[in-house]
Amino acid sequence: MDVIGKQLIRGSQRATGKETFASVHAATGSETQHTFYEATDEEINDAVEAAVDAFETYGKVTHAERAKFLRTIAKEIEQLGDMLLETASSETGLGLERLRGERGRTMNQLNAFASFIEDGSWLRIIIDRADPERKPLPKPDLRQMQVPIGPVAVFGASNFPLAFSVAGGDTAAALASGCPVVFKAHPAHPATCELAATAIMRAVEKCELPAGTFSMLHGRSNRVGGALVTHPHIKAVAFTGSFRGGKALFDQAVRRPEPIPVYAEMGSVNPVLILPSVAKRNRTNVAKQLAGSITLGSGQFCTNPGLLMMSGGDETQDFLSELATELATIQPATMLTSTICNSYIEGIKNQRAVEGVKSLTDGPSSNPSPHLAWISAADAVTHPHVLEEVFGPSSMAVVASSMDELLAFAKSLPGQLTATVLGEESEIGEAAPLIDVLRQKVGRIIFNGYPTGVEVSPAMVHGGPYPATTDARSTSVGTTAIYRFTRPVCFQNFPQQLLPAELRD
Amino acid sequence: MDVIGKQLIRGSQRATGKETFASVHAATGSETQHTFYEATDEEINDAVEAAVDAFETYGKVTHAERAKFLRTIAKEIEQLGDMLLETASSETGLGLERLRGERGRTMNQLNAFASFIEDGSWLRIIIDRADPERKPLPKPDLRQMQVPIGPVAVFGASNFPLAFSVAGGDTAAALASGCPVVFKAHPAHPATCELAATAIMRAVEKCELPAGTFSMLHGRSNRVGGALVTHPHIKAVAFTGSFRGGKALFDQAVRRPEPIPVYAEMGSVNPVLILPSVAKRNRTNVAKQLAGSITLGSGQFCTNPGLLMMSGGDETQDFLSELATELATIQPATMLTSTICNSYIEGIKNQRAVEGVKSLTDGPSSNPSPHLAWISAADAVTHPHVLEEVFGPSSMAVVASSMDELLAFAKSLPGQLTATVLGEESEIGEAAPLIDVLRQKVGRIIFNGYPTGVEVSPAMVHGGPYPATTDARSTSVGTTAIYRFTRPVCFQNFPQQLLPAELRD
Repeated sequence: MDVIGKQLIRGSQRATGKETFASVHAATGSETQHTFYEATDEEINDAVEAAVDAFETYGKVTHAERAKFLRTIAKEIEQLGDMLLETASSETGLGLERLRGERGRTMNQLNAFASFIEDGSWLRIIIDRADPERKPLPKPDLRQMQVPIGPVAVFGASNFPLAFSVAGGDTAAALASGCPVVFKAHPAHPATCELAATAIMRAVEKCELPAGTFSMLHGRSNRVGGALVTHPHIKAVAFTGSFRGGKALFDQAVRRPEPIPVYAEMGSVNPVLILPSVAKRNRTNVAKQLAGSITLGSGQFCTNPGLLMMSGGDETQDFLSELATELATIQPATMLTSTICNSYIEGIKNQRAVEGVKSLTDGPSSNPSPHLAWISAADAVTHPHVLEEVFGPSSMAVVASSMDELLAFAKSLPGQLTATVLGEESEIGEAAPLIDVLRQKVGRIIFNGYPTGVEVSPAMVHGGPYPATTDARSTSVGTTAIYRFTRPVCFQNFPQQLLPAELRD
Repeated sequence: MDVIGKQLIRGSQRATGKETFASVHAATGSETQHTFYEATDEEINDAVEAAVDAFETYGKVTHAERAKFLRTIAKEIEQLGDMLLETASSETGLGLERLRGERGRTMNQLNAFASFIEDGSWLRIIIDRADPERKPLPKPDLRQMQVPIGPVAVFGASNFPLAFSVAGGDTAAALASGCPVVFKAHPAHPATCELAATAIMRAVEKCELPAGTFSMLHGRSNRVGGALVTHPHIKAVAFTGSFRGGKALFDQAVRRPEPIPVYAEMGSVNPVLILPSVAKRNRTNVAKQLAGSITLGSGQFCTNPGLLMMSGGDETQDFLSELATELATIQPATMLTSTICNSYIEGIKNQRAVEGVKSLTDGPSSNPSPHLAWISAADAVTHPHVLEEVFGPSSMAVVASSMDELLAFAKSLPGQLTATVLGEESEIGEAAPLIDVLRQKVGRIIFNGYPTGVEVSPAMVHGGPYPATTDARSTSVGTTAIYRFTRPVCFQNFPQQLLPAELRD
């Protein structure tokens, strides 16, 4: 492919900056021949100004036109063919089969939002008709609907180079709502970003939309993201990535002269409550499936089950041994970047050094081999940092001496994206208080399943209380993600001709 | 009445602090015989801990029980009889008739939320059924609903001592959602707060709810509010008042170790676009009604029309003269506090001193007499501080030489609670771009009405872009205010017995 390595602004690719960086083959860590230009402040400003101009038109086109645009993006992504998959695989180390699935998911998301906005119910219209006879004062005619908020900054994730990146869920939700997008390309897969961005550019052209409806900026430094988030015309920020990255953007956004919402999905340890029947009667099956969930995508999922919660004695230890054996059979896979791989190895090393932690597998050395350890609930409470997310194929089991101790431990957990309960229906009565505590900590709670699969569906919540995200009121997967980028407006006694079409009689 | 002047925590009134303050007769500025104790840090903590305990129960009672509770509060407020109105009138200077209406509104709000939650549709339930046959992976059963977020801190407004105070809209919305409330009493009407709080306390007892479901704390210092907002177990903040007060709470809340949402409604100047036909054909009628809206409640409304926007020459000036004449006939009324009155007089003095401002009425001296001035759009753009809210019975007219100049001026406006268009349907075509710009700045846009009436209705939006509020995604009036205090949760493949009743088959 021809990689240009420049910003995509107002429908053309250009770069005036001097700073560049190279993309990297994930498998070897060696640089590719592709060079990318860091966006300059002028380019960042121009991309946002283009979005402001575009919003005047794009914020008002019909839902049918927006739906057509989303579907055209999906088609253009497909048209990129194997080149997209190969480029993504080279930059991320993820396999072609996985990326083929992820491309399908990306297209599904775009098409799902297209169908969602064609059905007007998404506007949450409320109409209260006038009552001129009401005493002591006549009642006015009031009509409420959701409207788009304006230009949105989107930051993609390294671990889903298609579905949570350029043409991913946040971009789809923002474009569906009527908001132009300025996308900050991920420096770990910049060529993949460029391909997807040009696909969106072609869809913009084919649908005859304003060129500023979508722009993309490259940058490896924090300056680019910071300048974007603090630009006065950006009205919201969506981010998927690390706690440190998301929290830094949040802090910048809320300290602006005009604070704006930040939807940062920052991951979590996704506790899995394993009820006694598992170790007693379903050990092998669960160990196999759980090992698969822990190591899926080399453990590089926001919903990776990084914390197992159990009570009990010998049978629990037998289950954990079996899980460790399963994990040991799974070959280490290439991680997204060498930085992520080194962080994983370092993180596990630190975990193993904590007092009370007993490792059940060898520690990873040069390769990111899967890891399992356990700690007593009492020790975990006094060493809470042992429960912090280590991004990669590992899990920490917290073993309590009783369900009551497990309950107390659950209460101490911070916010999470998910919690999972594994067990039999016959034993959940006893565990109900514990399950209820978990439910209060999460955006999604799963029974007898695994958290790593995040269904794209209207009912999905991929979100949760802080620090899993910076805004528990929203989701980054599923069609209700559209409300990240809208706000309600009420029209009082408005003439029909001035009302938005959806609110007319 | 017997005023106790203490905190209401866990169903009893107590105070251990040493600092006290007296309440004040608004009309005379003299202190009453009532003394109030500033809440201590221990009391603040205990009120929040009580709310945490209460949430375990109150967050799960049936909607029928919560609805009964809300209706019982309304009845208990009514049972306070004239004592409530007389106390409020003494503390705020508002007339008994106005307060009687406000009490009705307060009860209506409580009853409206009761009816709203009895209809399960408020839970925004989304059910996606399983498809075990789907390839390549079976589709899980996913069910989404809204759940309460936990203890909420509510700060009341000085200008609505009943409807935006102890038992006001935010308290009603939070209690309706299932969240316990810790209310910070307003020091400008603390005895009124105590009365309303004891009414809620009696409703808690009658409905046999946990005592911590509602607490109230007194305090004149910023310390009390700050300690409440930064308490780790408070999950959201609702506030109505000044920009300075709301922004300070926002800054504290987003800098917490766990940032929380802040819904601060901080007022605005509520632009009124007056189209040419008004000055030509409807001058007297509009001047009279607009004068009424500007001076309603001595101008102490968040939705007070503080900015008039007009284009044109002699007829415009004739209209403004007639409006000034109308305003001059309206007697100054007691303001809420002497501080507010002095700020008004000082604010108008500062406005009159700005280059290009031409006063059309005398300036207020010792009394808060209504005020009107005008400035050219060109001068207004170079002196934007002349457009800042002066809380009280005044308005500033911005006169442009053309509709284009008015459009440019409208684009420069910050976020507002409301905008209003006065004119004839025949002329709105020409003004459509201007009306569209106003619509993008506000939470509510009104045609041929006045912004000061805020209908309590499902379609109402009393909110708007910053700096009118800190969160344009929500409203503080109307039943959709309930979503300030909820978040979505998704249940995946959950057994029927563990699902909330509303989500079962």
